[in-house]
Amino acid sequence: MRYLFHLPLSPFSRKVRLVLAEKRLPFELVLEKVWDRRPDYLEMNPAGTVPTLVEDNGLVIADSQVICEYLDEAYPEVPLIGRTLGERVEVRRLVAWFDGKFSNEVSRPLVHEKAFKRFSGRGNPDAAMLRAGLANLRHHLPYIGWLAEHRQWLAGPSISLADFAAAAHLSALDFIGDVDWTVSPSAKEWYARMKSRPSFRNLLADRVGGIIPPAHYADLDF
Amino acid sequence: MRYLFHLPLSPFSRKVRLVLAEKRLPFELVLEKVWDRRPDYLEMNPAGTVPTLVEDNGLVIADSQVICEYLDEAYPEVPLIGRTLGERVEVRRLVAWFDGKFSNEVSRPLVHEKAFKRFSGRGNPDAAMLRAGLANLRHHLPYIGWLAEHRQWLAGPSISLADFAAAAHLSALDFIGDVDWTVSPSAKEWYARMKSRPSFRNLLADRVGGIIPPAHYADLDF
Repeated sequence: MRYLFHLPLSPFSRKVRLVLAEKRLPFELVLEKVWDRRPDYLEMNPAGTVPTLVEDNGLVIADSQVICEYLDEAYPEVPLIGRTLGERVEVRRLVAWFDGKFSNEVSRPLVHEKAFKRFSGRGNPDAAMLRAGLANLRHHLPYIGWLAEHRQWLAGPSISLADFAAAAHLSALDFIGDVDWTVSPSAKEWYARMKSRPSFRNLLADRVGGIIPPAHYADLDF
Repeated sequence: MRYLFHLPLSPFSRKVRLVLAEKRLPFELVLEKVWDRRPDYLEMNPAGTVPTLVEDNGLVIADSQVICEYLDEAYPEVPLIGRTLGERVEVRRLVAWFDGKFSNEVSRPLVHEKAFKRFSGRGNPDAAMLRAGLANLRHHLPYIGWLAEHRQWLAGPSISLADFAAAAHLSALDFIGDVDWTVSPSAKEWYARMKSRPSFRNLLADRVGGIIPPAHYADLDF
């Protein structure tokens, strides 16, 4: 069996869940509370982050981008990183933007403060971090809308890892009720398309102890 | 002409300089003071980071890992990301470890506090950050030594992007005099091999206003 060690609200874990589902690769989720720093887990992934994928044949793959590059090479039938050199540059640029800048400025402050601190018993959310994360989200959401207006999908004419990376971050933020979709109707329309994909169902069914998502979280016509 | 927008002490810029040189691709360096947030530059790279590569044909490639993936696909004669799926997973895992965890815990605190703050006029180094960066470096250097003892190169039998990512970070730290090589003789022996490669010459000749590297920085028999 293929196992994915994850946390439900980790955008990086969510990205890999979406990619596995898009590629129709069966897998089992294993909850990994990274704050426990389990020695067996650190041996598989010395960075101590989620997700980590363990393949049928025992191959261990740490880091979400490494996993996604691996999956696109090992299972190329549903290609998600583009075909031409130029397409591949744009897909990877956007993935790096969401997993780097957007994550540091939005997802990490909000998801870390609101969810991970609570689960790991590390105190209360820092109000200044929450304010900064929300302000940054209002600033970045129109960029997603702009991409969605000018292209069929975020990186170009085909759906790609850029869409799944973006949707993974936004779905975690939407779960904790932090996305004001009125800021960008184009971003909302694109996200509604993403949510209606079969690969998204598993994410929308997530239940996380102590946090109740807003009513629109799992609503396809939100 | 091919241009690389860079900062001399950015480990991410240094990694790409090494890869371009290993692949024997001529390029010109352009200094980009990212703290000025030049609008023309932000248009090429909305994340506002260095490096950004601009190809002969006008293709703009932002983000060091995106650049390295692109270069290995566009110029595969000198492959640097491994051949088999397993090799590629290990090369990329280590690159992600150096550019993620090692960067956040060591390079960013030290290089940012000592160099970038000074150049951008953003005040004095934070002593607590420097202490934490140095302590983390003493903790991580033996891991590099362990890899070098158990394998010919960091990711396996062939030199790879993992070696260049690691050497890029260490060379920036060595420039500011922060690497105590006595902590790990195996890491030092591996780094001496890296330094003696022709691709490294350009880095060893770097001069950065106001910072004088230690005598051993450019010495191949340090």
